Amino acid sequence: MNKLNDLTQTLLMGPGPSSVSPNVYKALSSPTIGHLDPRFINIMDNIKFLLKKVFNTNNDFCMPVSGTGSAAMESCFVNLVSKNDKILIIQNGYFGLRMENMCQRLEANIDLLKFDWGKEVDVNIVEEKVKNTHYDVVAVVHAETSTGVKNDIESISKVIKDDSIFLVDAVTSLGTIDLNVDEWRIDAIYSCSQKGLSCPPGASPISFSKRAIKKMKDREGLIPNWYLDMKEIIKYWDGNQRVYHHTAPINMMYALYQALLDVEKEGLKNVLNRHKSVHNQLIQGLEKINLNMLVDKNSRLLSLNAVKIPKGVNDLEIRNKLLYDYDIEIGGGLGPFAGKVWRIGLMGHSAREENVKKLLKALNHLL
Amino acid sequence: MNKLNDLTQTLLMGPGPSSVSPNVYKALSSPTIGHLDPRFINIMDNIKFLLKKVFNTNNDFCMPVSGTGSAAMESCFVNLVSKNDKILIIQNGYFGLRMENMCQRLEANIDLLKFDWGKEVDVNIVEEKVKNTHYDVVAVVHAETSTGVKNDIESISKVIKDDSIFLVDAVTSLGTIDLNVDEWRIDAIYSCSQKGLSCPPGASPISFSKRAIKKMKDREGLIPNWYLDMKEIIKYWDGNQRVYHHTAPINMMYALYQALLDVEKEGLKNVLNRHKSVHNQLIQGLEKINLNMLVDKNSRLLSLNAVKIPKGVNDLEIRNKLLYDYDIEIGGGLGPFAGKVWRIGLMGHSAREENVKKLLKALNHLL
Repeated sequence: MNKLNDLTQTLLMGPGPSSVSPNVYKALSSPTIGHLDPRFINIMDNIKFLLKKVFNTNNDFCMPVSGTGSAAMESCFVNLVSKNDKILIIQNGYFGLRMENMCQRLEANIDLLKFDWGKEVDVNIVEEKVKNTHYDVVAVVHAETSTGVKNDIESISKVIKDDSIFLVDAVTSLGTIDLNVDEWRIDAIYSCSQKGLSCPPGASPISFSKRAIKKMKDREGLIPNWYLDMKEIIKYWDGNQRVYHHTAPINMMYALYQALLDVEKEGLKNVLNRHKSVHNQLIQGLEKINLNMLVDKNSRLLSLNAVKIPKGVNDLEIRNKLLYDYDIEIGGGLGPFAGKVWRIGLMGHSAREENVKKLLKALNHLL
Repeated sequence: MNKLNDLTQTLLMGPGPSSVSPNVYKALSSPTIGHLDPRFINIMDNIKFLLKKVFNTNNDFCMPVSGTGSAAMESCFVNLVSKNDKILIIQNGYFGLRMENMCQRLEANIDLLKFDWGKEVDVNIVEEKVKNTHYDVVAVVHAETSTGVKNDIESISKVIKDDSIFLVDAVTSLGTIDLNVDEWRIDAIYSCSQKGLSCPPGASPISFSKRAIKKMKDREGLIPNWYLDMKEIIKYWDGNQRVYHHTAPINMMYALYQALLDVEKEGLKNVLNRHKSVHNQLIQGLEKINLNMLVDKNSRLLSLNAVKIPKGVNDLEIRNKLLYDYDIEIGGGLGPFAGKVWRIGLMGHSAREENVKKLLKALNHLL
């Protein structure tokens, strides 16, 4: 009955999880210790230190949420969006819809600014939208995993006014493309472990600016979420007291720690360059086998590549053959792109030359 | 800077996490695959099958929540307690307080039935309380980790009326003492991975009865929690469609799966007997070194033993010496028992004769 023994080292080139490095697997199985053990507190401090570096921030508040990326996402919204808060959600894909759904649950006063799926957010339209309106929170996705579009957060940040909390989804961007939390004046950011950081899912980085923390702390009453209540959890992750809130996912934190150490060792700049280089390699290879990209060149996300499925080709058949015959996973399309695109992830440990070669060779055989 | 290499195989005999078996460590590092990979779906099905057995239930809805025990706890409350629902919380320890806190966030109409910390819930008083009042939900903790008290859920269940959802915390009881979800007519139950199941924290079992699922599904509108919305998550864990909700913590699920396979292999009955036998061994040993228990014999929880700290003995000094000189972790007291009791866990892989001997020897040296 034990199905674990049959598992193979599948090459994960979908929208995530990405393949995990031997280092991180080893870290994951390090001896479990208590969540209040001084050695664990020390590891927490090191994780914080390394998170600041990958986020490019001096924010004191950097920590991994005890869940997968969507828990980190909800941590940002539930702690920073109060009932009736006026919030602008800039939407150009599936994860923008999820932002809306979360804000509905919080009974926020939601304003949507919609752009076509597969197209980049138009900064001028954002500027126009926010010019004469106060928004408590403005939220946008940096790298839309659903479509392979990168939004220009730097430019968007310049048009968002100072009286708004700027909330950014960095689930697929962290550790794969440029991300400068402080320079881009981002107030709240969330990501995950299983994409750019190439760690299994289960411990998901967030960071809040001082302004975000002030909004969170000034808020009266209890938020409708206990597990993700950062006003309480901050007492465990910061300061001298280390007050118990909930048991942290100890071994997942080990894995994230190792993944961050690996980025530190390679150097963030080198990591980002590697992502860029394998992206170019992939694009060139896809062109050779006459496969076209969904997204315009200038808006393309290096780390998640939406490829148009050629007419007459059966989406699922090819993906299944890739998985069963070649042990490679790629993703299908979401929403309007279901059956119409493949999503090829180039993230973390998966983003290496030999992997791109392997995938191109397999696709070449199959098509 | 890598602190993982310094970690030792600390013997975890506190309130959790408990020590992890080599089997489970190995499973944890099995190759990460996608959360929609048919092999992973198959593992999910096996986990469900094994969870039914440890919960002693025929409930279709058995699954691990993608977080630690408190996330499982919140899953039960947030999905089953609506605004203004009349809820009775039976409290005799710290985790009863947490139930209250969660229900405040949900704006429930809360009624508390309080018993002294360290004492068992009096079933007659519960019966009196519910006799003439309708409660939408009645919630109680089976095994109070904060005090080492076991509440008699079987007897309590007999006095709870049919018009109430009966919600039980089994965080410290699952896999350590008798627990019969169907026989005791429990409608919603939650536990964790890092105690009786001896797996690292991060994937936490819950189960809902048909009545609970009906209450959940009949509810209108969105609950104030996206990550734990079981109405949506059930579509990923059940049925043919397997709709993506959030990325599951893949490797944590492997670990939980292996832990459940290990229980299955030893036999649940044998596992429970082992817990009983090491508890008796511990009690006898503690008596020999003149240490007394906080809780009356009949109300004692086998798996979590609250021991009175003798007068003149410094709590933290002894616990630190145990940790640093003997590599054994035990827990301190919570709330009114801080500094007054030690909490010795006998759970899962930690609950073995040689471990009890090791701890008793160390305590004997230190006191």
